[in-house]
Amino acid sequence: MIQTFEINPWKIVTHQLDKDHKRLQESMTSIGNGYMGMRGMFEEDYSGDTLPGIYIGGVWYPDKTVVGWWKNGYPEYFGKVINAINFIKTNVLIDGEKIDLAIDQIREFELSLDMHNGILTRQFEILKGDKKIHFKIQRFVSVSQKQLFDLNYEIENRSDSDVSIEINSEIDADVKNEDANYDEKFWEVKEAEVDGRSSYMIVKTKPNNFGVPRFTVGVKAQYLTLMNEHKVIKDDWDVQNIFKQTLSPKKSIDFEKRVVVVTSRDYSQPENLKLALNDISSRVIQKKRNQLIHEQSAVWNERWEHADVEIEGNNSAQQGIRFNLFQLFSTFYGEDKRLNIGPKGFTGEKYGGATYWDTEAFAIPMYMALADQSVARNLLEYRHNQLAGAFHNAQQQGLKGALFPMVTFNGIENHNEWEITFEEIHRNGTIAYAIYNYTRYTGDESYLLSEGIEVLTAISKFWADRVHFSSRKQVYMIHGVTGPNEYENNVNNNWYTNLIAKWTLKYTMDALGKLDKGRVEKLKVTPHELRHWSDIIDHMYLPKDSEYGIFLQQDNFLDKELKPASSIPINQRPINQHWSWDKILRSPYIKQADVLQGIWYFIDQFSPEEKKRNYDFYEPLTVHESSLSAAVHSILAADLRYEDKAVEMYERTARLDLDNYNNDTDDGLHITSMTGSWLAIVQGFAGMRIDRDGFLSFKPFIPKKWSAYQFRINFRNRLIKISVKGKQVTIKLLSGSPLSIKLNGKIVKLEGSK
Amino acid sequence: MIQTFEINPWKIVTHQLDKDHKRLQESMTSIGNGYMGMRGMFEEDYSGDTLPGIYIGGVWYPDKTVVGWWKNGYPEYFGKVINAINFIKTNVLIDGEKIDLAIDQIREFELSLDMHNGILTRQFEILKGDKKIHFKIQRFVSVSQKQLFDLNYEIENRSDSDVSIEINSEIDADVKNEDANYDEKFWEVKEAEVDGRSSYMIVKTKPNNFGVPRFTVGVKAQYLTLMNEHKVIKDDWDVQNIFKQTLSPKKSIDFEKRVVVVTSRDYSQPENLKLALNDISSRVIQKKRNQLIHEQSAVWNERWEHADVEIEGNNSAQQGIRFNLFQLFSTFYGEDKRLNIGPKGFTGEKYGGATYWDTEAFAIPMYMALADQSVARNLLEYRHNQLAGAFHNAQQQGLKGALFPMVTFNGIENHNEWEITFEEIHRNGTIAYAIYNYTRYTGDESYLLSEGIEVLTAISKFWADRVHFSSRKQVYMIHGVTGPNEYENNVNNNWYTNLIAKWTLKYTMDALGKLDKGRVEKLKVTPHELRHWSDIIDHMYLPKDSEYGIFLQQDNFLDKELKPASSIPINQRPINQHWSWDKILRSPYIKQADVLQGIWYFIDQFSPEEKKRNYDFYEPLTVHESSLSAAVHSILAADLRYEDKAVEMYERTARLDLDNYNNDTDDGLHITSMTGSWLAIVQGFAGMRIDRDGFLSFKPFIPKKWSAYQFRINFRNRLIKISVKGKQVTIKLLSGSPLSIKLNGKIVKLEGSK
Repeated sequence: MIQTFEINPWKIVTHQLDKDHKRLQESMTSIGNGYMGMRGMFEEDYSGDTLPGIYIGGVWYPDKTVVGWWKNGYPEYFGKVINAINFIKTNVLIDGEKIDLAIDQIREFELSLDMHNGILTRQFEILKGDKKIHFKIQRFVSVSQKQLFDLNYEIENRSDSDVSIEINSEIDADVKNEDANYDEKFWEVKEAEVDGRSSYMIVKTKPNNFGVPRFTVGVKAQYLTLMNEHKVIKDDWDVQNIFKQTLSPKKSIDFEKRVVVVTSRDYSQPENLKLALNDISSRVIQKKRNQLIHEQSAVWNERWEHADVEIEGNNSAQQGIRFNLFQLFSTFYGEDKRLNIGPKGFTGEKYGGATYWDTEAFAIPMYMALADQSVARNLLEYRHNQLAGAFHNAQQQGLKGALFPMVTFNGIENHNEWEITFEEIHRNGTIAYAIYNYTRYTGDESYLLSEGIEVLTAISKFWADRVHFSSRKQVYMIHGVTGPNEYENNVNNNWYTNLIAKWTLKYTMDALGKLDKGRVEKLKVTPHELRHWSDIIDHMYLPKDSEYGIFLQQDNFLDKELKPASSIPINQRPINQHWSWDKILRSPYIKQADVLQGIWYFIDQFSPEEKKRNYDFYEPLTVHESSLSAAVHSILAADLRYEDKAVEMYERTARLDLDNYNNDTDDGLHITSMTGSWLAIVQGFAGMRIDRDGFLSFKPFIPKKWSAYQFRINFRNRLIKISVKGKQVTIKLLSGSPLSIKLNGKIVKLEGSK
Repeated sequence: MIQTFEINPWKIVTHQLDKDHKRLQESMTSIGNGYMGMRGMFEEDYSGDTLPGIYIGGVWYPDKTVVGWWKNGYPEYFGKVINAINFIKTNVLIDGEKIDLAIDQIREFELSLDMHNGILTRQFEILKGDKKIHFKIQRFVSVSQKQLFDLNYEIENRSDSDVSIEINSEIDADVKNEDANYDEKFWEVKEAEVDGRSSYMIVKTKPNNFGVPRFTVGVKAQYLTLMNEHKVIKDDWDVQNIFKQTLSPKKSIDFEKRVVVVTSRDYSQPENLKLALNDISSRVIQKKRNQLIHEQSAVWNERWEHADVEIEGNNSAQQGIRFNLFQLFSTFYGEDKRLNIGPKGFTGEKYGGATYWDTEAFAIPMYMALADQSVARNLLEYRHNQLAGAFHNAQQQGLKGALFPMVTFNGIENHNEWEITFEEIHRNGTIAYAIYNYTRYTGDESYLLSEGIEVLTAISKFWADRVHFSSRKQVYMIHGVTGPNEYENNVNNNWYTNLIAKWTLKYTMDALGKLDKGRVEKLKVTPHELRHWSDIIDHMYLPKDSEYGIFLQQDNFLDKELKPASSIPINQRPINQHWSWDKILRSPYIKQADVLQGIWYFIDQFSPEEKKRNYDFYEPLTVHESSLSAAVHSILAADLRYEDKAVEMYERTARLDLDNYNNDTDDGLHITSMTGSWLAIVQGFAGMRIDRDGFLSFKPFIPKKWSAYQFRINFRNRLIKISVKGKQVTIKLLSGSPLSIKLNGKIVKLEGSK
């Protein structure tokens, strides 16, 4: 656990350049606008350890799969988020000497991410010989004009004598991914020009052998700066604008770089792309910087107005939830339905791929409440659009129906560990569950009965082929899986997987019952298949143990040596960084909620006693080394009124990255699990549910250390505000028609406040 | 199944150049002398598909481990058999045009490996325009002078006009391994010279980052040929001697190349290496080729005299066993105790590493009977010498004691699949078993009580740490293993593994009982440990099923859908080339003997009924896709007097490569499993055992298609010949003192024949 930033309700701020945890600081100061984003690396060259990264949504490269031992069925390529060409690059020379914060002497350092406005500021005074120069550097990616990145320098000469300032600003295509095979570059430069006030470059991803379309990216930099001297350089891999000026004592100069980025995703014709690049550039250059900042603030303010969770009495908790919402919205705000929510967003290249089951499990429940209903629906349609890939994935394993991928950009599986790729099939269940979750929350059946049912039948066909019938035990089983708890591989009858498979079949059959015969026939579901599905539903094996009164995570789980996670020596945590894989596998330790994940999904279908026994048994064995674990535990603990535990788990999910809990934030933030802190407050502390009778219901409590909290949600075209202050709960309908809800089990009618 | 060679009792011969199966033909015509060896690729460049490979025993390179997803504990490097520099390379130009059998028109092609003498001959007539030239090319690696390779060309002009013949003979260091990471070369050229009659090159393996010593190899080629013209070329990567002559009609020329190869394994000082290279070269050049061939034949004849298995009435079976013995002896004849028996010998680069558990399980039982007792003992000592590596391997997994590697050159684990590296720990049991096997067969306890006990205590410490106690079931268990059947991964309580672990502890404790207290103390085995070991022995869980009356391969095996292997469609065999890994894992199909492996090891400890029930249950589920499977099944089938099955399994093991059963011989032969055909005849058909009373015993039968078979074995300083002709069994003591044995259960005294 490393806390390298200060506690502050609206800022991620530090006054120390922490060279030992530079990558961590970079991750934490990432910015994005859904369209593009970047880590918090410095604009200038930094000779210490650093992980630069600029990413453009939906632009990726299919890199050849590399494994030690090939298995039949592995995907041919692994889709990688590409480190984009470096358009922020700006070196500053003082009296001819480059600044490099890894070695230069500095003071008054401040690095501050203003979450309210989405602006990153860096300030420091640098001492070079007897010269003292102060820098204030601000950057943002615009949320009002997606293609725009703005960078501004205020440089002040605090010395007693003249200083020569040279600014060398580049667009640099000589960029690699840290994890590329064979150190290859992904970009080819197609065109580049530079003049005194601007430069541009058009690059294309290099060819691939997998028939994946190549991407073209156009970047134009413009400079709003008057300096005495300027010159330009054009090389094979970069274009440079160099500005120079002598600065008298106490004088300042400003330097602004505006960059516009367009891609072939929006302009598939090269000539249109270039036109758009010039067109948008000429528009953005006409605005004053103040105006751009004003627009930036306006959009962010509106987002906060709707989505902010306000916590009184605990700035640490407050900072956590805001940081998570800020980073989530920086990654995805639902404007582009071709995009999804990558596990690292724009904050790192790790994990490749854009889309994981995290989206359906953890992101959709939050976006349903915080963004327009269409955003969640777009996320569902994203999967429907990739159904062909899911059929392909199942076929790769010799199975019928559709298997949605573990990791993907285009629907084709990208992952290549057999125990995950081939076995972590429960992901398919969550794709189905999200359809149910959306339908239940919004009350809108139209997706379910149109595209949704196509997805559901395809998944059900997969399950029906993937189970087998054990003649000996006269039940259906699912062998050879990895459950949500990835610290068990190739197990038999993972309770969660069996449950979600059975549930999917049932939900699909119920939905089919709502369709006319012709439509069912078009879906190619035969009566024979339906009988088979019914039989599976009736005879699916769900392992349990009568002695403990629990659901069994998998066959034979209780044969293990059951010692609580608290008995693991602290210097061996996290275990995945200290133990060999076999030791982890045969230990009883659980990476993330597994049985409890299932209980969370269907929380209204289990008795308090069942919930308690399973929670009490599994939670002590859980090491929460997946970022997805703590939120589920917080919600269930809250449900059981284990309030302290719920808060502990909330803090872990809310500050996972802020406090680097699992010692793995240096290469990027855990974007998808950031929804967990919101879920923990809303579903956990406030106890929000859609109950069995279809009521929106709440059962709030307040963490001991807090004095009040409040949040707003969308619900069926209404905006509702929930405030909890001490024992006092206030629920207000801010907009929309009256609605009956339940508060602590009692029906309450919300009337509009207007 | 592809039969590309003819049935012939002493030859591997074909009259077809099978361009579609060129690699397969190359594998089958591999030659070796324990010191070095090579595949049957042509000397000249071949533009079709080919896999060249020349290998020098004990010379390897530690190549960086490449995996998709790193796991803690993985070894840093993967030891690779290096493709040596190419010293056989010889191109022939006819009227200035290179011959290339991939495209040239040829007739009278013959490729013939004479197993009796260890000589490979290739003949063909080539048609170039109106010219007809006949070639007879012979090569061998000398078994009387290990460092020597001899290559001879007889070239005859069968045209009506003059032909210009140019021979370009090289030593070429521009060689790669097909499976090297990043296409890197493993060699650096240190020195090279060439003159009119000879050339030499000294190369060194390139540096590595793992502290593994580099190898130096010196190669000198000498030419015993008088031609009209000659010239030399020296490049960065090669040295070439070029000879040219015009050949009149009906005339022939001979061309001989003798190559001497020395390494830093024998001459660690560079100056000594060079001296030795010149010294040996000047000695071998003084002999006539006839003399070299005579010496070659003499050594091979002596080997056959001792080891040949003669089969009458079935040339196919005869060829199979001889081919296997020939290739085994070409790989290893026990002269160099620093070497072991690589799974591909000198016939391919696949699998890397030199040493697998195959040696202890399958090779030692044969070498004990066919070579001097010291050979088997040397193989045991090889492991003792690598004990430090085995301690390191266990430590990598956070475990006590020693874990012998799956794959190694130096004792350090080289493999990198978690389910194998970390989990296929039964290998440790076989290392222990080999000590028992050797001691039982030879009656020599001296190894057991000296080095052997150190190995045994180290392995026992490992087992005692690797088991866990299941409080619920009150037994010791071993979770998370891969048994010999590698088509199951990460299973719990593999019967075989649990059995061999328990047995090792017992055998170690028994051996400790024979030592004095001081020696036991030196071994650092505490009374507390011994009590723990006893407890494990008493309470080890060995899964079984009462309904079938079988030992259970692993927990829950019977929950599978149990369909016999015969139900798999033929176009899906072998399944490992058609099914995705998860499908294989959840199928009931067994790659190789698992429960039956254990029954074979301790065959005298199971009742006929137990053997029968387990065989009858498991054999039908077995796909024998490991080359190690058929022999065990043949022996057990013979034991149960399933004679037809025993013969079927024999044929499979004997002709696995000859008939390319598993469609995987193209990249090399299955050297270690070649012992299986010998074991099937000797332990299977002839029923050789050391019985519970310590008697050497036989219970022979003869396969229906055979009329007679005979073989010889070493046994405790005696040479014994066993002949079976029809129902007639004759056992003769050829040398050594009288001995009582058992034949069909009755004691028979063998008197010396002299």
